[in-house]
Amino acid sequence: MRKGNLMSVRHDIRVLDATIRDGGLCNNFEFSDEFVSELYKTNIKCGVDYMEFGYRASRNLFNENEHGKWKFCKEEDVRAIVGDNNTDMKISVMADVDRCDYKTDFIPKKDSIIDMVRVACYIHQIPSAVEIINYLNGLGYETTCNIMAISQANFNQIDEALKMLGESKVDVIYLVDSYGALVPESAVELAKKYLEYGEKYGKQIGFHGHNNQKLAYANTIETLSYGVSFVDATAMSMGRGAGNCAMELLLGFLKNPKYSTYSLLRFIEKYMIPLKESGVQWGYAPQYMLTGQLNRHPEEAIRFTEQNRTDYTEFYKELLDNF
Amino acid sequence: MRKGNLMSVRHDIRVLDATIRDGGLCNNFEFSDEFVSELYKTNIKCGVDYMEFGYRASRNLFNENEHGKWKFCKEEDVRAIVGDNNTDMKISVMADVDRCDYKTDFIPKKDSIIDMVRVACYIHQIPSAVEIINYLNGLGYETTCNIMAISQANFNQIDEALKMLGESKVDVIYLVDSYGALVPESAVELAKKYLEYGEKYGKQIGFHGHNNQKLAYANTIETLSYGVSFVDATAMSMGRGAGNCAMELLLGFLKNPKYSTYSLLRFIEKYMIPLKESGVQWGYAPQYMLTGQLNRHPEEAIRFTEQNRTDYTEFYKELLDNF
Repeated sequence: MRKGNLMSVRHDIRVLDATIRDGGLCNNFEFSDEFVSELYKTNIKCGVDYMEFGYRASRNLFNENEHGKWKFCKEEDVRAIVGDNNTDMKISVMADVDRCDYKTDFIPKKDSIIDMVRVACYIHQIPSAVEIINYLNGLGYETTCNIMAISQANFNQIDEALKMLGESKVDVIYLVDSYGALVPESAVELAKKYLEYGEKYGKQIGFHGHNNQKLAYANTIETLSYGVSFVDATAMSMGRGAGNCAMELLLGFLKNPKYSTYSLLRFIEKYMIPLKESGVQWGYAPQYMLTGQLNRHPEEAIRFTEQNRTDYTEFYKELLDNF
Repeated sequence: MRKGNLMSVRHDIRVLDATIRDGGLCNNFEFSDEFVSELYKTNIKCGVDYMEFGYRASRNLFNENEHGKWKFCKEEDVRAIVGDNNTDMKISVMADVDRCDYKTDFIPKKDSIIDMVRVACYIHQIPSAVEIINYLNGLGYETTCNIMAISQANFNQIDEALKMLGESKVDVIYLVDSYGALVPESAVELAKKYLEYGEKYGKQIGFHGHNNQKLAYANTIETLSYGVSFVDATAMSMGRGAGNCAMELLLGFLKNPKYSTYSLLRFIEKYMIPLKESGVQWGYAPQYMLTGQLNRHPEEAIRFTEQNRTDYTEFYKELLDNF
């Protein structure tokens, strides 16, 4: 059963802007302070509920000098943009299992500018994710678990993972279509499973889509209509490979009058169009369709894009050779 | 209830390539013979069921010298590409109510290279459409009725229209989202209504989408899954404004082994990419999102695009002023 209808307001919905985090994968997190600051102000005006500033990646594993600062999201760097963030919008960062130093890099929530930590993992890493989540919950943060590449997991694994997360301290469990392989029918089928566990254990369910088959927005609003409440989007769809659900589409769809598109349109004019024209690459193209249809990581399509290739038939054969 | 599932073959499905017809609205139907001929061969290799060559528009209303020949689709022009079309693929043309001379421009089917005529109309023109359809059926053609701009019709009108078409000689009734205003939920709701009448009167149902909200493919496969059987698509989404459902996405989705994407990928490399690079404009952009969300004809967004404007906020205000 759908929850609400196309005219109704759902007060449980939370919109998360992942432009800096997922979009940062396209430009090595090298956004100007002005860009991030203007996006922050835009999100507030548009009614966005959470803004994700990037990753909190391990500085042991990754060299700070080789990446923009939003790969690390140090407290002082976030504060330089948001001050004490005296707004209704919350701030999140993402921490990847096995790529973060969660025991040293997170301070107690009461001293932190961060509200929510989203723990990303593959399905075999759920036990590690649970450990991190429970630790961060103990520090006072809201937490999510973003199980990536879910289109490659089997249903038994998913049931087991959802049970483990159900019994953890996590607040939100995210269905993440990393490969852009889901279509509305399969996305909804998975979402219903997540929602069943969510109901049983009192967890909210989230959706994060990719646009390999031009379905990120469609999958987002379809899973939303069945009860998913946390939804990710990015300005002008900026995100790895084919990109994400466009925030402007999502805000235009939602009926709660707290959400508006106008300021985002201005941000797109002033910041996103120039960013794209500067050569940063993202967005749907046939190569992403092929990896999405084949349910594969987009890395080969990203390389194909970087090489400005358009020999799709050769690429298709390369993909089939590497099966 | 969905019909079949994501693994099953539905033998009732018919794929129609509308590249020359809907794409022709982007370049005044000025395709080279080589382009049309290669697309014809590509469609055959890909298993496409119908190829639409364009409109059969009135030569009294429109000057032949001012448009490419595919606005008129004269018998000899189609034959110059397809010979006697000794293939499994059928050929269609579109005739707009009040813009065609159906009594003089259609010869008996037994002498014609055309298999199917798709009669396009707005909902208030249904009586005229029925007259044309019954006439063409008498000549021996398969016919469809494509009720355009359906997102602006009310349900009472739609019920009445479907009843009139049900009682006509039409073979297929098309749900046409001319404004790209539908989302999967509303598209499926409408499709179910069409399917109900289709079942009652023994008519097939078709779907033709536009990509204003990046939902043409999503709406196509969602309505398909509930029983729609005729689906339109175009190479690389080429079509008026934001374009249509991409044929490459649709062929990749369908499970019947008769459909394949490979030859279309080659056609995209060799013909569609150069066409786009030559300056012919189509495809999703924020201006189309705005007219789609506002449930409006895309004409203002097309003009905005032609002027290479990116001042989306001004455009948005202009749209609201013209409500």
